[in-house]
Amino acid sequence: MLNRYDCIIVGGGVNGGSIAYHLAKKGKKVLLLEKDRLARKASGAAAGMLAAQAELEEDGPLFQLAKQSRAMFPILAEEIKDLTGIDIELVQKGMYKISITEEEEYHLKHIVDVQTRAGEQAEWLSQDEVRSREPALSNAVRGAMFIEKDGQVSAPQLSLGFLKAAAALGVEIKEYTEVTSFLFESGKVTGIQTNHGSVESEHVIVAGGAWSEQLLPKSQIPLQTYPVKGECFSVRTHQPLLTGTIFSHGCYLVPKKGGRLLVGATVQPHTFDQTVTVNGISSLLEKAKRLVPNIVHAEWEKAWAGIRPQTVDGLPYLGEHPAYEGLFVATGHYRNGILLAPITGEIITRLVEREPTPVDISAFRMERHTEKII
Amino acid sequence: MLNRYDCIIVGGGVNGGSIAYHLAKKGKKVLLLEKDRLARKASGAAAGMLAAQAELEEDGPLFQLAKQSRAMFPILAEEIKDLTGIDIELVQKGMYKISITEEEEYHLKHIVDVQTRAGEQAEWLSQDEVRSREPALSNAVRGAMFIEKDGQVSAPQLSLGFLKAAAALGVEIKEYTEVTSFLFESGKVTGIQTNHGSVESEHVIVAGGAWSEQLLPKSQIPLQTYPVKGECFSVRTHQPLLTGTIFSHGCYLVPKKGGRLLVGATVQPHTFDQTVTVNGISSLLEKAKRLVPNIVHAEWEKAWAGIRPQTVDGLPYLGEHPAYEGLFVATGHYRNGILLAPITGEIITRLVEREPTPVDISAFRMERHTEKII
Amino acid sequence: MLNRYDCIIVGGGVNGGSIAYHLAKKGKKVLLLEKDRLARKASGAAAGMLAAQAELEEDGPLFQLAKQSRAMFPILAEEIKDLTGIDIELVQKGMYKISITEEEEYHLKHIVDVQTRAGEQAEWLSQDEVRSREPALSNAVRGAMFIEKDGQVSAPQLSLGFLKAAAALGVEIKEYTEVTSFLFESGKVTGIQTNHGSVESEHVIVAGGAWSEQLLPKSQIPLQTYPVKGECFSVRTHQPLLTGTIFSHGCYLVPKKGGRLLVGATVQPHTFDQTVTVNGISSLLEKAKRLVPNIVHAEWEKAWAGIRPQTVDGLPYLGEHPAYEGLFVATGHYRNGILLAPITGEIITRLVEREPTPVDISAFRMERHTEKII
Amino acid sequence: MLNRYDCIIVGGGVNGGSIAYHLAKKGKKVLLLEKDRLARKASGAAAGMLAAQAELEEDGPLFQLAKQSRAMFPILAEEIKDLTGIDIELVQKGMYKISITEEEEYHLKHIVDVQTRAGEQAEWLSQDEVRSREPALSNAVRGAMFIEKDGQVSAPQLSLGFLKAAAALGVEIKEYTEVTSFLFESGKVTGIQTNHGSVESEHVIVAGGAWSEQLLPKSQIPLQTYPVKGECFSVRTHQPLLTGTIFSHGCYLVPKKGGRLLVGATVQPHTFDQTVTVNGISSLLEKAKRLVPNIVHAEWEKAWAGIRPQTVDGLPYLGEHPAYEGLFVATGHYRNGILLAPITGEIITRLVEREPTPVDISAFRMERHTEKII
Repeated sequence: MLNRYDCIIVGGGVNGGSIAYHLAKKGKKVLLLEKDRLARKASGAAAGMLAAQAELEEDGPLFQLAKQSRAMFPILAEEIKDLTGIDIELVQKGMYKISITEEEEYHLKHIVDVQTRAGEQAEWLSQDEVRSREPALSNAVRGAMFIEKDGQVSAPQLSLGFLKAAAALGVEIKEYTEVTSFLFESGKVTGIQTNHGSVESEHVIVAGGAWSEQLLPKSQIPLQTYPVKGECFSVRTHQPLLTGTIFSHGCYLVPKKGGRLLVGATVQPHTFDQTVTVNGISSLLEKAKRLVPNIVHAEWEKAWAGIRPQTVDGLPYLGEHPAYEGLFVATGHYRNGILLAPITGEIITRLVEREPTPVDISAFRMERHTEKII
Repeated sequence: MLNRYDCIIVGGGVNGGSIAYHLAKKGKKVLLLEKDRLARKASGAAAGMLAAQAELEEDGPLFQLAKQSRAMFPILAEEIKDLTGIDIELVQKGMYKISITEEEEYHLKHIVDVQTRAGEQAEWLSQDEVRSREPALSNAVRGAMFIEKDGQVSAPQLSLGFLKAAAALGVEIKEYTEVTSFLFESGKVTGIQTNHGSVESEHVIVAGGAWSEQLLPKSQIPLQTYPVKGECFSVRTHQPLLTGTIFSHGCYLVPKKGGRLLVGATVQPHTFDQTVTVNGISSLLEKAKRLVPNIVHAEWEKAWAGIRPQTVDGLPYLGEHPAYEGLFVATGHYRNGILLAPITGEIITRLVEREPTPVDISAFRMERHTEKII
Repeated sequence: MLNRYDCIIVGGGVNGGSIAYHLAKKGKKVLLLEKDRLARKASGAAAGMLAAQAELEEDGPLFQLAKQSRAMFPILAEEIKDLTGIDIELVQKGMYKISITEEEEYHLKHIVDVQTRAGEQAEWLSQDEVRSREPALSNAVRGAMFIEKDGQVSAPQLSLGFLKAAAALGVEIKEYTEVTSFLFESGKVTGIQTNHGSVESEHVIVAGGAWSEQLLPKSQIPLQTYPVKGECFSVRTHQPLLTGTIFSHGCYLVPKKGGRLLVGATVQPHTFDQTVTVNGISSLLEKAKRLVPNIVHAEWEKAWAGIRPQTVDGLPYLGEHPAYEGLFVATGHYRNGILLAPITGEIITRLVEREPTPVDISAFRMERHTEKII
Repeated sequence: MLNRYDCIIVGGGVNGGSIAYHLAKKGKKVLLLEKDRLARKASGAAAGMLAAQAELEEDGPLFQLAKQSRAMFPILAEEIKDLTGIDIELVQKGMYKISITEEEEYHLKHIVDVQTRAGEQAEWLSQDEVRSREPALSNAVRGAMFIEKDGQVSAPQLSLGFLKAAAALGVEIKEYTEVTSFLFESGKVTGIQTNHGSVESEHVIVAGGAWSEQLLPKSQIPLQTYPVKGECFSVRTHQPLLTGTIFSHGCYLVPKKGGRLLVGATVQPHTFDQTVTVNGISSLLEKAKRLVPNIVHAEWEKAWAGIRPQTVDGLPYLGEHPAYEGLFVATGHYRNGILLAPITGEIITRLVEREPTPVDISAFRMERHTEKII
């Protein structure tokens, strides 16, 4: 490690990687620190859905953020492939948001209506229509909202892709390096202390996922995040069971390359415990069997878990720390960390460069809770 | 490989290992051949139950064989530990054969009666009694037959233990070596041809598990075996959920060292396919949850499968091939391969030495089906 | 499995996969059988070099075969990606065939001369030139023959890509299925017997790599192949050490995506033993350190081995069995199995369709040795 | 987690496990917290040598500590086996401290003399004598100091053994739980804050290995430790290459059960980076080949690394924090963490109970450096 960098990024996940990549493209001298190994936490565990419309449903600042980020993937896929040889496995075959109950059907039809009126592509498919497109779906499926633009990527490949592309552009990466404290002078960040010595920089970006809150210096404006465990498993068949992604209440099925099918995810708030429980597997299995009965003949591959950072109001944190100039925060992406990584990298880069951001990020500033209380 | 051995053993599983070990103890010069890696098929996949009484229930040649074999484990455990440092993880805390239905209860009480009258230890435990001993059991359990002497071992450790103990006594082991044909002269075996050349010996023992039938030279007295896939999974807790082994219809739970719990096994006949299916996991999970509800909080470890050799009459094959002098067969042990390995090693050694066997093995000879037809 | 197919392919490696894929494109109903798991032997172990010019050096039937096959990769990469989502990781950044000794330099300059006169691209680079392109190379490197068109792919991804693309086109794949004998009628193949029953077909293609010889029916025209073990290892860095592939006497270094570097391969003839030896690792490490000294700072990833099928005259077998109509053989590709897979698939398809092959394959017919003896 | 415990242990390695076990035997209500998974750092990576005499050589407080700890293993092995089924794989076949140079021979003969005069068993073996006992040793070995009592165990099994035995005695274990701060009242510890909430206790023991210093509350009496990476690899043979442990300058070889041989360890100070480098593997391979030439024929298994806590004066820290009543520290064991774990558990338990310790620990108190400066 040199002693001085334009920017230091704390966190070697998908958002740290995207920030490093975008800063490096602007010619910044960047150091990225990861306390363990790259892309081993939520970024390596995620299913990789780009569910801007399926997950967020109604317009608002997060919806706009997600839409813009989703649009960045095709070009990013090419850039990352060129720089690193890594294929992020972008698939643009749409997403089916499934209704099982009459109530869900009613709700989804309403969302289709809302979104189409807002100018988004979204359409309602009857049971016959959805099952003719995805014959593996059971007849418990009443119908589906189909969203053409909600694709998916490989979360581990995207994460490594950003990080290795950043390295190719000169970013220095250090694994097994923990930040132990931040260095400040007159309210400005001047560097960090790590378990491998101190490093100077006027810009420090914390992108530590669910661990960000605990990393940050104590101040009167704390993050209000909590960890949410998600468990997943994957199976394999020679002929793919599905073409598009199936998104339903409590269970999604994401078809990956070569006949892999990823099934996720449970929602266990307030734990950093990354073990997979029998309960998690068992409940996902039940849901997946109800949606795609033929999954029972698939080969079991493996199960895993990740810890996602949720916030009290469901919005991420993106911005400069109000109490410390030069300290930036990018976390709280919850289930949208993969989807939002591209725009997150771009926004933080603009903030570092003191330029306007491509979307309004005032809803994501750290001090929003404190202000609301007032 | 030398060119000449007293005995050649074909198969590097638990029975090949036991035979090698027992022959080496008698001073024989032995070569053991394994087509893949040691202990990677059924021997490495088994749960390791020594269920002589629980599995076989009524007296007969197989029951006697099983009982004698079970009695050999304590001394073997010491011998293997001394020679190799390997602990076979013998646990002698008994087995609970569980009743869920009234019919099962009636049947098990009858078996307790039969076995005790035959001089075996076996006792009936009421629901209260069994749940006071194993508090993790659900109240779906009506009661249990408790068998004190039906212990368990680690199947992979027993298999490797036999093989490495044999190596310590001078047995030569070759992995990745396939037998392509047998060499005969005037009705006597004289050696084998392998993918690494030919080797001479007047005694060739086929202990290839479910692959034995296909290995053997074609003759008018074929084996009548078929493969049966069994799928398992394991979970972990810090405090063990169980003390003794739980044996029920379609599901057993075997407590292993350090809080591991092994759950087995499905029964899929007529396949050599070793993949684990979603169906297999799902059905075992349901059964295990019904018996031990708290298993839902355990940590998921992994799933695997093995292929067991079953025979048309449920009895193993142990003996000399009626058409080829010097060719011996030890297979068809089905779910009792671990339990029967010690006595199998001893019996084959006696046969090679042309000495009487410690139990009557006439029921296990290859030619039994042909004779019956007559 | 159905009972009847247009073609049965024996072997689930890269060549079996390519044949299946090319037959399926012609509308054939195909069954592919693999005795273990797909792409787990040499096809999954290979480094993936497309070293048509670097490996074969001088014109001849194998050189022509290799050149045509190399040219097929760009289109195949797109087809496989479209059908399966699998990226075969084709890299076209050239190959450096390195000289360390004066004798090697003299030889390589001669080969550059021979190839350029034959119309191939090849150029000689001085020490300065090669080290300015690949600064990680040591000054032990005197110079290099640079071959622009000798690229590389991921061998495991290509293998799975072919197999899964074949599945997408309707090929049925069965793992854990061993062929135990062939069925013939009046000199024509009519099907096969497997450990999961018999299947009928008038075309059976044996693409079993080093195991092909032992699979084939005994006849007066045997294959003359032998297995050659190759050991490899891989390391990782954040910034790639190399851009192009380095090919030297006894050691090659192939840069893979995301900073992986694959180092191969030892040459151990006459063994099917797939274990990696200390000797293998140790000798490769010495060679790699001499070529790229900075490899010492790279992270160790893992080591593995594969068994390649070599023939007595160094040429593969591609053609119909002279003694059995409808029985085809594709093996003996030695270190060129990945490179030759595309053309192998096309040639076998043409043979099955009784059409002319795109290259003259008379040098590769099985009966060549017998004829020569005469 | 309950809200209140007699003792909280921070660190789920071998020393945390031993402390938990010894406290639980005294009836204490104990909570053990591990930030990642149990026994995954140095405790799971160690070779398990009990090299009291071989490593420490001359009398002094650490030598006495080591000797007493070494003597505790046989009984612990039985206790752990009884409580958990885990075999710690204690081997008592002695250790050979090898001389290659004349200077080493001179030094070792001196140490034999010193130790025997101090009443310890130690003997000098000539080249012939040592090679007749360990025929795999090369003739580069001039002779060896043989220490009968310096045995070895499986470090991962001992670590898990302590931890699971503690769990069996009622200790509550929480993985993925990080301590974020300590709670104090009037100079006494009252509990801790974790990422999963706060817990009260009047006794907190920090046994976090190389991470202990960073864990502890900042005070004027800091630990003076630094991390030292050690890299290892293992190989396998059917017949063991060695019987006793070989200990030489820069390389040791420890024979494990079933023919495994563990080779360690490099010494890389001042890094927490747990990656294995090509350099590490390469230098160990060279040393191991010089000692045991036949290792080249062994099968390569795998490589790994661990981070050991070293102190500026080479002595561990064992005692109560001088600034905070009820806060205890057990770290700095460097290469003797496995050897010293039993006595560490006993000493901390005595300190918690305000009883005299079995050995004088004044040399290991935290405040020793501060005092010396004065």
